[in-house]
Amino acid sequence: MDGEANGAVAVGIVGATGYTGLTLVRLLKRHPRVQVAWMTSESAAGRRLAEVAPVLDEDVLVPWEEVTLTGREVVFCCLPHGAAMEVVQQAYAAGCRVIDLSADFRLPQPETYARWYGVAHRAPELLSHAVYGLPEVYRETIRGARLVANPGCYPTSVNLALYPLARAGVLSPHIIVDSKSGVSGAGRKPKLTTHFVEANENLSPYNIGYTHRHIAEMERVLGDVGRDWTPVITFSPHLLPVNRGILSTIYVTLREPLSPEEVHALYTQTYRDAAFVRVLPLGQVATLRHTQHTNLCVIGLTPVRERQWIITSSIDNLLKGAAGQAVQNMNLMLGWDERTGLLHLGA
Amino acid sequence: MDGEANGAVAVGIVGATGYTGLTLVRLLKRHPRVQVAWMTSESAAGRRLAEVAPVLDEDVLVPWEEVTLTGREVVFCCLPHGAAMEVVQQAYAAGCRVIDLSADFRLPQPETYARWYGVAHRAPELLSHAVYGLPEVYRETIRGARLVANPGCYPTSVNLALYPLARAGVLSPHIIVDSKSGVSGAGRKPKLTTHFVEANENLSPYNIGYTHRHIAEMERVLGDVGRDWTPVITFSPHLLPVNRGILSTIYVTLREPLSPEEVHALYTQTYRDAAFVRVLPLGQVATLRHTQHTNLCVIGLTPVRERQWIITSSIDNLLKGAAGQAVQNMNLMLGWDERTGLLHLGA
Amino acid sequence: MDGEANGAVAVGIVGATGYTGLTLVRLLKRHPRVQVAWMTSESAAGRRLAEVAPVLDEDVLVPWEEVTLTGREVVFCCLPHGAAMEVVQQAYAAGCRVIDLSADFRLPQPETYARWYGVAHRAPELLSHAVYGLPEVYRETIRGARLVANPGCYPTSVNLALYPLARAGVLSPHIIVDSKSGVSGAGRKPKLTTHFVEANENLSPYNIGYTHRHIAEMERVLGDVGRDWTPVITFSPHLLPVNRGILSTIYVTLREPLSPEEVHALYTQTYRDAAFVRVLPLGQVATLRHTQHTNLCVIGLTPVRERQWIITSSIDNLLKGAAGQAVQNMNLMLGWDERTGLLHLGA
Amino acid sequence: MDGEANGAVAVGIVGATGYTGLTLVRLLKRHPRVQVAWMTSESAAGRRLAEVAPVLDEDVLVPWEEVTLTGREVVFCCLPHGAAMEVVQQAYAAGCRVIDLSADFRLPQPETYARWYGVAHRAPELLSHAVYGLPEVYRETIRGARLVANPGCYPTSVNLALYPLARAGVLSPHIIVDSKSGVSGAGRKPKLTTHFVEANENLSPYNIGYTHRHIAEMERVLGDVGRDWTPVITFSPHLLPVNRGILSTIYVTLREPLSPEEVHALYTQTYRDAAFVRVLPLGQVATLRHTQHTNLCVIGLTPVRERQWIITSSIDNLLKGAAGQAVQNMNLMLGWDERTGLLHLGA
Repeated sequence: MDGEANGAVAVGIVGATGYTGLTLVRLLKRHPRVQVAWMTSESAAGRRLAEVAPVLDEDVLVPWEEVTLTGREVVFCCLPHGAAMEVVQQAYAAGCRVIDLSADFRLPQPETYARWYGVAHRAPELLSHAVYGLPEVYRETIRGARLVANPGCYPTSVNLALYPLARAGVLSPHIIVDSKSGVSGAGRKPKLTTHFVEANENLSPYNIGYTHRHIAEMERVLGDVGRDWTPVITFSPHLLPVNRGILSTIYVTLREPLSPEEVHALYTQTYRDAAFVRVLPLGQVATLRHTQHTNLCVIGLTPVRERQWIITSSIDNLLKGAAGQAVQNMNLMLGWDERTGLLHLGA
Repeated sequence: MDGEANGAVAVGIVGATGYTGLTLVRLLKRHPRVQVAWMTSESAAGRRLAEVAPVLDEDVLVPWEEVTLTGREVVFCCLPHGAAMEVVQQAYAAGCRVIDLSADFRLPQPETYARWYGVAHRAPELLSHAVYGLPEVYRETIRGARLVANPGCYPTSVNLALYPLARAGVLSPHIIVDSKSGVSGAGRKPKLTTHFVEANENLSPYNIGYTHRHIAEMERVLGDVGRDWTPVITFSPHLLPVNRGILSTIYVTLREPLSPEEVHALYTQTYRDAAFVRVLPLGQVATLRHTQHTNLCVIGLTPVRERQWIITSSIDNLLKGAAGQAVQNMNLMLGWDERTGLLHLGA
Repeated sequence: MDGEANGAVAVGIVGATGYTGLTLVRLLKRHPRVQVAWMTSESAAGRRLAEVAPVLDEDVLVPWEEVTLTGREVVFCCLPHGAAMEVVQQAYAAGCRVIDLSADFRLPQPETYARWYGVAHRAPELLSHAVYGLPEVYRETIRGARLVANPGCYPTSVNLALYPLARAGVLSPHIIVDSKSGVSGAGRKPKLTTHFVEANENLSPYNIGYTHRHIAEMERVLGDVGRDWTPVITFSPHLLPVNRGILSTIYVTLREPLSPEEVHALYTQTYRDAAFVRVLPLGQVATLRHTQHTNLCVIGLTPVRERQWIITSSIDNLLKGAAGQAVQNMNLMLGWDERTGLLHLGA
Repeated sequence: MDGEANGAVAVGIVGATGYTGLTLVRLLKRHPRVQVAWMTSESAAGRRLAEVAPVLDEDVLVPWEEVTLTGREVVFCCLPHGAAMEVVQQAYAAGCRVIDLSADFRLPQPETYARWYGVAHRAPELLSHAVYGLPEVYRETIRGARLVANPGCYPTSVNLALYPLARAGVLSPHIIVDSKSGVSGAGRKPKLTTHFVEANENLSPYNIGYTHRHIAEMERVLGDVGRDWTPVITFSPHLLPVNRGILSTIYVTLREPLSPEEVHALYTQTYRDAAFVRVLPLGQVATLRHTQHTNLCVIGLTPVRERQWIITSSIDNLLKGAAGQAVQNMNLMLGWDERTGLLHLGA
């Protein structure tokens, strides 16, 4: 395996002090086949990780400018959208494999990016090289990729929940997604909305309707895997007073009547080889507890009345919704078992 | 005012040690025009309230069998559905005014009750005397009532949120209600689902689709106030890790296009005299924090795309969803200002 | 009563958008004898309160510089320590009654202030006019005061818990105070320590030992009320994942053996006329739930072994620990029943 | 290694559906050298684990009576105290290695057990064979043991925090321990005290002073490792609204003055080979977050004034306080690296 020294591949983490970065540090430090070579932080450069987070890790954070790339590393970029483009460009140009956890390379067209994110894309030449890193849908493409755009947390919970129906072409276009996310999904930078007293004992809808940027990733994937259709998504995210986890309650109408058993079989068939997706027995619903501290997506299927279904979908937003999925993508890119370093999770 | 001794009406509380009962005790003890004459408990009869709840109240609980009714009391019944019927019957027969906080008198037809609650009604003769106690819809009828069926918590949040549109006859029948409730809504009796460790850091859908009993109250009220229509409700309650509050996120389609301003005006007009309903400005969403520890229902109106709207509705399940609304109903029944004893809430 | 127009005294709130300020707004708006004339905010001047907090209050915030004082107002100052001095000076000079909720006027000697707060006092001439606003200890002095220094939250919970023993002169000087506070005690300004994800599911000691500034207020009051003694306090505050409330667990040794009944009688005697202090029966402990959303201090007395006792003390940090006590002080300053506007709390 | 089939040792779990049992299931299923042969439950015998807990595990629970022992298994007993004795007796008699997670074998004298637990010991002949399973203190004895009494959660946090000072003989006997525990420490059986609404937004001291049974384990270990002394412990546990974790804030006086550096060196020396104990740099305090989801004990050392110190100690009550320590003990009993199956924790 190229990039592997003493049997271990060197990895670097850009932006290690946010919640995604910190989760990635923990995963990669325990991963049996990689070695964390460096981790960067702009705000905390020069300090030890233990000084800026309640962890015991004594690694010193470096500024991105001081990192020297050999081209054999895997670079994980955990910067906010807009800030990731240049770092990804530089790491890609240096020959590295790059996994970008921001939104910067998730949409194939620069115009779509500009429309949803309100800024022009500054590395449009890379968009055609970027593979959307949802392994259960794009596993083979990811294997050959050098640049992976790691999916957003909400779209992961929704796209995995709807992929079997969308691919089978049986979904009516109008889809209502009512999602609830733990506060770590809002980032580690202190804001009034994430102040303990404001979020605790509260529940707040935000950006509901057709305004949240993650809709673009749902439209991209669901439109892509379906046949002759354009999904029309209504999406209502809510800020939930828990640390981690996303639960999406999804309301769909089928184009044609299918029995509960047929729908269930469609899901279990689709995911029969997916190590990280679990379809619950009919009659059960997904809860946050099913997936917290794991890389799993757990899906429940509930028929309501003829052709109307509710799909419940649960992930840990920091793992399957971010850092865990990024490691899964790395495993695929490097030709390893995609479960490496992820199966121990959940104790 | 009959029933009033030294200017104070005697009130009694049946089932004072549940969350609804305890909230009612607090409200009625601070109410300027009533006197709590007795409170009952089967499990804790003979003990002081302070022994069975983290309150400082030294009143001794009595068993219902030992209560002597004069007929001038207002009796609040906080028993579970099924257990309330006989108590209500006895208090009504004694000439008391009765406010029942269970589901036993909320549905006008005994068959509907039997269908949703799985048991035959044992006091069907009283159903025609029972008024559904949602003051913003049935205020005048409540004024003359001797038996009020206090609404369920979920239906209160949903019916107030949809009443203006339903009454105007502009709602398409298919309505999706995604509700989230604090754990006090599940009662004070210990169960595994309400164990702190199971509910905390979790979110669980339960009885989703067309199975939760509160749907019957939504169908009753919305069907009643609308014209020539039968609402078709999909209802997904979720157990939320907070103590109190219900947030309902409601997805509706209008029969005809209305501008945001028209919809907003419809709501503010409908509720212009409602002391306990607040319609937020367009663009704002309701959160739990808006209503916790108050008797308010706060409503947000969000247009999505042509004819598609999201209505967010927030109440405190123990107050406007139960004990607060019961006091509001008592105030109306006794000819008082409906706000008496309820305006101080919220500090 | 001077300052009273149409029977209502005008009150103003400086710094209305923090947690203490917001609580004060709610209390004063429901107070039957006052009228909120204005409320200030530097950061949100010109905006409505509803825009900067999850409340329904439409009052517009003004900058302090634009307030015109008649001298008949009661001015509540909710600025941070250090920032309050000048505002208090100006309001006092204008003839107003002033209640300062910061630490700026709590310590009688400017040197003590400088030692604990690290800055020189800029209004030392006012210190001798400032009365320490703990009504259960200094009620008569407060009645005549024009400037009241409202106590800190931790000292209120500790001083009320130890006052009976300290005044009786039976306490050994070494006292260990292990306090736990809800996050609203840390202020509303977003910081990493008050980020939901950092504080939730966590418990953090901070400034433990002999470093927290509130020790100065404990030494002042306990030293003052006792005889020939200097208390030696070890104080460990902890940040607790709840919104509001302080529980102090206090370890003391008596100078002489007293029976449980003697200790209990000492407390009930001391507080027999205190509307807002409740002494629990022997064998019971104070919990946060006893006092949340009330102006109460609840005290539990637990004998351990000869002469060793544990005192548990609970208050709501925003009410008896701040805004509620401030209203109690105002009531006393204006010659009213000290309970006015405070008894309804707790529903 | 005897008992090892196909390289894997068979393990059985008695009482798998409580929080300790469920945690043990997760740890042992991921342990590289063992195979979970069976797990028992009385209340849920015949059902799959996934039916009684929010896990995905499809193993069927069996009643203890149907388990056939070969004598080569390691048996983990997660029954409550009092109920464990007979099971331990039977498994020990069958030749198994036994790790008992109840209190039944933690106290060497049957009289001490009877005094603290209020019942006579029914297997006193085994007490002399039982080794107290605190590896950092009794590692060598554990290696040869066939019966290990796994320590209580509170005593683990306290004994590890005080072991270095007690062994050095520098502790004054009076020790005050103020501990705060997550709700999982109170068991999974629903009770009013563990009801979400009662525990959430609350903090409750319970069994404070000299009454909690875990004091016996602190006296046993600290008395044992010290020289010529009898510790006099005051212990105040508090129920904390978090799922998991224990923080102990411990107030000690030294017999002789030691510099901060000397105390710190004493701790780092004592624990230099302890894989699961971390001593923080001087000036830092332990928090719950340091240890949640790990098998670590993290210790902070804070000098207060001459000879007075505060020791803060944090563990995850389900891991180092129960199931993690049990696996650590198994590893030692079987001659393996004590870290096996425990190092991955914490992501």
